[in-house]
Amino acid sequence: MKFPSPVSLSWLSEFLDAKLVGNTGASATGINEIHKVEKGDLVFVDHPKYYQKCLQSAASFIIINQAVECPPGKALLIVEQPFEAYLKIVRHFRPFEGSDQPISPRATIGKTSYLYPGVFVGNQVQIGERCMIHPNVVIMDHCVIGDDVVIQAGTVIGSDAFYYNTNKNRASWYKRMLSCGRVVIEDDVEIGAGCTIDRGVSGDTVIGSGSRLDNMVHIGHDSVLGKNCLLAAQVAVAGAVELGNGVILWGQVGINKTLSIGDHTVVLAQSGVGGSIEANKIYFGSPAEEASVKKRELVWIRRIPELWHKIMDRGEQSGL
Amino acid sequence: MKFPSPVSLSWLSEFLDAKLVGNTGASATGINEIHKVEKGDLVFVDHPKYYQKCLQSAASFIIINQAVECPPGKALLIVEQPFEAYLKIVRHFRPFEGSDQPISPRATIGKTSYLYPGVFVGNQVQIGERCMIHPNVVIMDHCVIGDDVVIQAGTVIGSDAFYYNTNKNRASWYKRMLSCGRVVIEDDVEIGAGCTIDRGVSGDTVIGSGSRLDNMVHIGHDSVLGKNCLLAAQVAVAGAVELGNGVILWGQVGINKTLSIGDHTVVLAQSGVGGSIEANKIYFGSPAEEASVKKRELVWIRRIPELWHKIMDRGEQSGL
Amino acid sequence: MKFPSPVSLSWLSEFLDAKLVGNTGASATGINEIHKVEKGDLVFVDHPKYYQKCLQSAASFIIINQAVECPPGKALLIVEQPFEAYLKIVRHFRPFEGSDQPISPRATIGKTSYLYPGVFVGNQVQIGERCMIHPNVVIMDHCVIGDDVVIQAGTVIGSDAFYYNTNKNRASWYKRMLSCGRVVIEDDVEIGAGCTIDRGVSGDTVIGSGSRLDNMVHIGHDSVLGKNCLLAAQVAVAGAVELGNGVILWGQVGINKTLSIGDHTVVLAQSGVGGSIEANKIYFGSPAEEASVKKRELVWIRRIPELWHKIMDRGEQSGL
Repeated sequence: MKFPSPVSLSWLSEFLDAKLVGNTGASATGINEIHKVEKGDLVFVDHPKYYQKCLQSAASFIIINQAVECPPGKALLIVEQPFEAYLKIVRHFRPFEGSDQPISPRATIGKTSYLYPGVFVGNQVQIGERCMIHPNVVIMDHCVIGDDVVIQAGTVIGSDAFYYNTNKNRASWYKRMLSCGRVVIEDDVEIGAGCTIDRGVSGDTVIGSGSRLDNMVHIGHDSVLGKNCLLAAQVAVAGAVELGNGVILWGQVGINKTLSIGDHTVVLAQSGVGGSIEANKIYFGSPAEEASVKKRELVWIRRIPELWHKIMDRGEQSGL
Repeated sequence: MKFPSPVSLSWLSEFLDAKLVGNTGASATGINEIHKVEKGDLVFVDHPKYYQKCLQSAASFIIINQAVECPPGKALLIVEQPFEAYLKIVRHFRPFEGSDQPISPRATIGKTSYLYPGVFVGNQVQIGERCMIHPNVVIMDHCVIGDDVVIQAGTVIGSDAFYYNTNKNRASWYKRMLSCGRVVIEDDVEIGAGCTIDRGVSGDTVIGSGSRLDNMVHIGHDSVLGKNCLLAAQVAVAGAVELGNGVILWGQVGINKTLSIGDHTVVLAQSGVGGSIEANKIYFGSPAEEASVKKRELVWIRRIPELWHKIMDRGEQSGL
Repeated sequence: MKFPSPVSLSWLSEFLDAKLVGNTGASATGINEIHKVEKGDLVFVDHPKYYQKCLQSAASFIIINQAVECPPGKALLIVEQPFEAYLKIVRHFRPFEGSDQPISPRATIGKTSYLYPGVFVGNQVQIGERCMIHPNVVIMDHCVIGDDVVIQAGTVIGSDAFYYNTNKNRASWYKRMLSCGRVVIEDDVEIGAGCTIDRGVSGDTVIGSGSRLDNMVHIGHDSVLGKNCLLAAQVAVAGAVELGNGVILWGQVGINKTLSIGDHTVVLAQSGVGGSIEANKIYFGSPAEEASVKKRELVWIRRIPELWHKIMDRGEQSGL
């Protein structure tokens, strides 16, 4: 999330009751979780295991729970509970607004776009020209829909991320990391019925132009689809995934979080992709392998009885 | 389902045109299907294979299609078609009500809870305090939502069970067992977008406090989730399943009906669990096995060609 | 799609700016894509690979991009871009209508059917008697619902097909083949919550009488289910599939496009069916095989270590 205007670290240190170290005169232009940080951003870290990753990231300002050495030009905001500080900032700059009518008067909707009855459009949503939004679609606050986009019935754009801070010493183990990101649907995208596309936690979930999603496709927070991707029914893409251009995922494929899939790669139906995979290849299986390798494996499995009998026969012949 | 007040067996035997045997002066306090029976309950059975299970169950009163020996203190209601008798009782005590407005005036909704536009709330629904119900959510009659619950857009709470009486001698093979149970969502639960949670056939489907469900999760009738469970996107849990506390089901996992999963057990993505599994373990595969066993299997499969070549080489060397 | 009345080829050739060859005095009674053509139909073809299939199909009139020999009694409409000609015809005879109210005044709804709040019913929809349509269900234009049908909350009937003309030389690779077909739900069908049933591209998607669908079931365009089929939660059936009578698909099964499944066949949970399968059998696995074969395979896989040790032992004993 970008702030409406740069926020001085001195104001932030007071707001968070934080000790400010390093480049104390600077201002932050936004806040992001570690997967999406850019120059000028705040980020937070509360476990020594991830200190270096955050300190060395693109983020300029680090909310941290221990005094460590500050990289040159950056600043630290030292607080006891960095996660709570993050939530406090998000709540302040993205307060809950609610909607007392189905189409927010603060949404911007292209005059040539058509919305069927039962559609919900949240605050600050932008919808381009020549879009077709089918009945009972839900588009939550701040999401951006390009031109020539079709969204079929019952689909939800901008649900909150399934992304939790875990602490098993609390009665309630999982505390939601508040979503302040968006969904951005580029031009000329078609989305089927009954899909769910989560907003970014702090950045954008993006569906690239020319992409086509079938029914009941789930896209997790902060995932980015390239151009002309094709996702068949009941595909699930977890959070912070990157799909290249022209990627094809056939029905019921599952993609694990924070991985990337190269351009033009095809994943066959029901496969489960657990790690990043290359461009221009075909994958199959759960866990997925290159389809040619996987198919050979299936042939080998069918030959096990033959193997067994060869061994048994020889055992008899050789007396072993 | 509990009756509004105890119902005398003599009234019931007249209502059902049943022959009453055993403890004829008693009253029933409720009716349940066999997986959920309690003391004071009616239950029904129409196949000799299940007679003993029902007669020996916690149920006090058995609707049955044959005169059998009645266990001491219990009573039998003998009718020709016990399933029809069950349906007649459910229809009488839980008649169809319908709703001519989206939010039933007979629902109870905490003043501090927020409902977006497009939400449907049925009759006798209870919603606690500080809940957030997103657009186009459907909560059907009699369901109970605790405090601090989040339900994201398009989710359906209290759909009817997928539970049928099968008889292939009828033109229509599958006759629905009418649902008279509820969904109970405990405090501090968060449910994603596009989920469906079926009500109990006669008992309660329960989502334990602290649990988190991602998008497009399906929970079948009468299933009970413990506290702090975590279910990722597109998980399907069939009917009458028991999940312990702190169970984690990753994306697209499927759980077969009427089984149990022990506390803190983790099921990896796309696995299919066909039978009950223990606490504190990690499972993988379809059918699921302990993940360490399954992973070793995958390694062994990759070694089949090596095995083959060893045998071939030896065959040549030994002349076999 | 049938035309409202027969359409003369001479009018069509002018409308499409096409060269007309063969039986030029005839009239077309409808238009269909190749999987659904009947006598009197128009069909289109734009690739030499499929010329013969279309020319020899049941279709009487072929929109084609090259002058070829015309089968006797048939006619050719020769145009540069047959796909565009198809789209032009569909747009003319099935123009976009939209709906400014949730229940179209041009729908026909049986007086004894009950619609909950939040339901959308499109133009020309027909709903029979004694149906129960739960909250927030969407039924798009032209769909037909029989008598005694239950459709649970949030389900979408008549979404557009996931069916595209692909051309990677365009900036946008996938151009939608406009759907002009319908969904036909026969009598006595029950459909769960959160399902999506796509309309036929040019023909009908049919759910046979007595069938039961659990929650989150997806049925692709032009697929036809027989009578008394049972589909458990999160099943996905792709386009142009034929299911016989009494077919059972357990949870999370996926069925590939344009195949057929014989009567009374059962596919076990999470299986993936890639080709047509026979009647009266049980299948399992992804890719699916007969369950007995698949289960034997799983046993053989578990015996690989034993095989390995046998070979190792003998190698030592025989000195190889």
